[in-house]
Amino acid sequence: MDVRFLSLNQITTNGWSVQQAVDGCARAGIPWIGLWRHKVAESGLIESARMVREAGLRVSGLCRGGMFPAGTKVERAARIDDNRRAIDEAAELGTDVLVLVCGPAENCTLDDARSMVEEGIEQLIPYAAERGVKLGIEPLHPVFAADRSVISTLGQANDIVERLGSRQVGVVIDIYHVWWDPKLYEEISRSAGHIFGFHVNDWLAPVENAMMSRGMMGDGCVENARIRRAVEAAGYRGPIEVEIFNQKIWDSAYDEILVQMKQRFELEV
Amino acid sequence: MDVRFLSLNQITTNGWSVQQAVDGCARAGIPWIGLWRHKVAESGLIESARMVREAGLRVSGLCRGGMFPAGTKVERAARIDDNRRAIDEAAELGTDVLVLVCGPAENCTLDDARSMVEEGIEQLIPYAAERGVKLGIEPLHPVFAADRSVISTLGQANDIVERLGSRQVGVVIDIYHVWWDPKLYEEISRSAGHIFGFHVNDWLAPVENAMMSRGMMGDGCVENARIRRAVEAAGYRGPIEVEIFNQKIWDSAYDEILVQMKQRFELEV
Repeated sequence: MDVRFLSLNQITTNGWSVQQAVDGCARAGIPWIGLWRHKVAESGLIESARMVREAGLRVSGLCRGGMFPAGTKVERAARIDDNRRAIDEAAELGTDVLVLVCGPAENCTLDDARSMVEEGIEQLIPYAAERGVKLGIEPLHPVFAADRSVISTLGQANDIVERLGSRQVGVVIDIYHVWWDPKLYEEISRSAGHIFGFHVNDWLAPVENAMMSRGMMGDGCVENARIRRAVEAAGYRGPIEVEIFNQKIWDSAYDEILVQMKQRFELEV
Repeated sequence: MDVRFLSLNQITTNGWSVQQAVDGCARAGIPWIGLWRHKVAESGLIESARMVREAGLRVSGLCRGGMFPAGTKVERAARIDDNRRAIDEAAELGTDVLVLVCGPAENCTLDDARSMVEEGIEQLIPYAAERGVKLGIEPLHPVFAADRSVISTLGQANDIVERLGSRQVGVVIDIYHVWWDPKLYEEISRSAGHIFGFHVNDWLAPVENAMMSRGMMGDGCVENARIRRAVEAAGYRGPIEVEIFNQKIWDSAYDEILVQMKQRFELEV
């Protein structure tokens, strides 16, 4: 895939600060960057926005809002407030995509947690519209259903998008989370018109630690190019983030990682 | 749930031989046992069948057939032959259920692997019918999609059952593999009439090693009783296996584990 679409999701270069990641992208000729709230907070929101602008980069999205389910109304309201702050941060950083990692069941049942996710997103719609930020539900791999997200499939995310019926709500498709789904291509088609983000990487087997077993495109069993073509056929023309949690990569020389990333993006995606 | 339905899947007491597992069940008053081919082979097929009979136990199922996808016709044919042997073993052991763990993509694409699974099962139907053994497709958790099974959801298994349209082909529902599925209860309903096995346990989070993170019913986040009621409502009246891969349990005193298992089965399932 053309590197004009390539975005570095900064978790891939986890040891770098926002400034270092921005500079690394500029050196490597990577035009987009996906930022994380905790990294942005470390550098300062206004400063991070400035760093990105001065380097001539664009922000593909902000990770992450979400985490909706909680055991009390007070706590759930606090989560909604935090999401509004995340919306503000996205707007300040010049991106119109807030990635939603919806959260696990916390002191509640699985069904209730799923309802809380949908209700939470619905509550955010007016403010998101006001700030010009779109909410991208990122279904997470079912291995994370008990600790990170009760939204586990693209179909489930699409169902929520349909029910809420708002232009502010769509999906973020991350290959690591969805590649295994027997209904993947059907659901990518169903996502047409509301795909707000697309992340590529690879699945390394056997999985030792599911959080940290992502690989560089081409190092695993995933059909990256085929999935990318399907996402494109569904109308997505936005940036494509490379998002990899992998200790070997985290311990490597990041400039070399970025060079490899560009090569693999061109070859494998 | 009534312990008359309780079956010890022998992988839970992994350090025991068939004889030890059979004797343990007899001591604990557990009426059923789920056997594994490699354990049965260690003790001898005829001997294992005798041990079970003499202890007055019944075999709920044999793990496992499957492993269909392979890169060459010759290898695929060899897998089918091995499945026929597994069918013979099930019949000799007095169970009418062979559990199918369908296998990963091996030197082939994901789509082709899935086709090979369906074709492989179809090829086994006549022999299974002849020997009076039913083939239970066990969808595995998507975390195992790259290394153990390209059949990842109950819906996908039900689709195969529908297409093959044979009384010899059904599903085995293992809670660990399916609890997270947003379509779980729909698909349990759709399984009515062809549920050949039901396994209970729990999901321990956070997952460190997905193979070894199963727990005893009640120790995790799964709604065991609710799922059991759904499986019952779908018409299943057979034995319910407790299948747990867990190093702490494997290292424990198995007689105590069986006592706890019975208590948890009555309380949690």
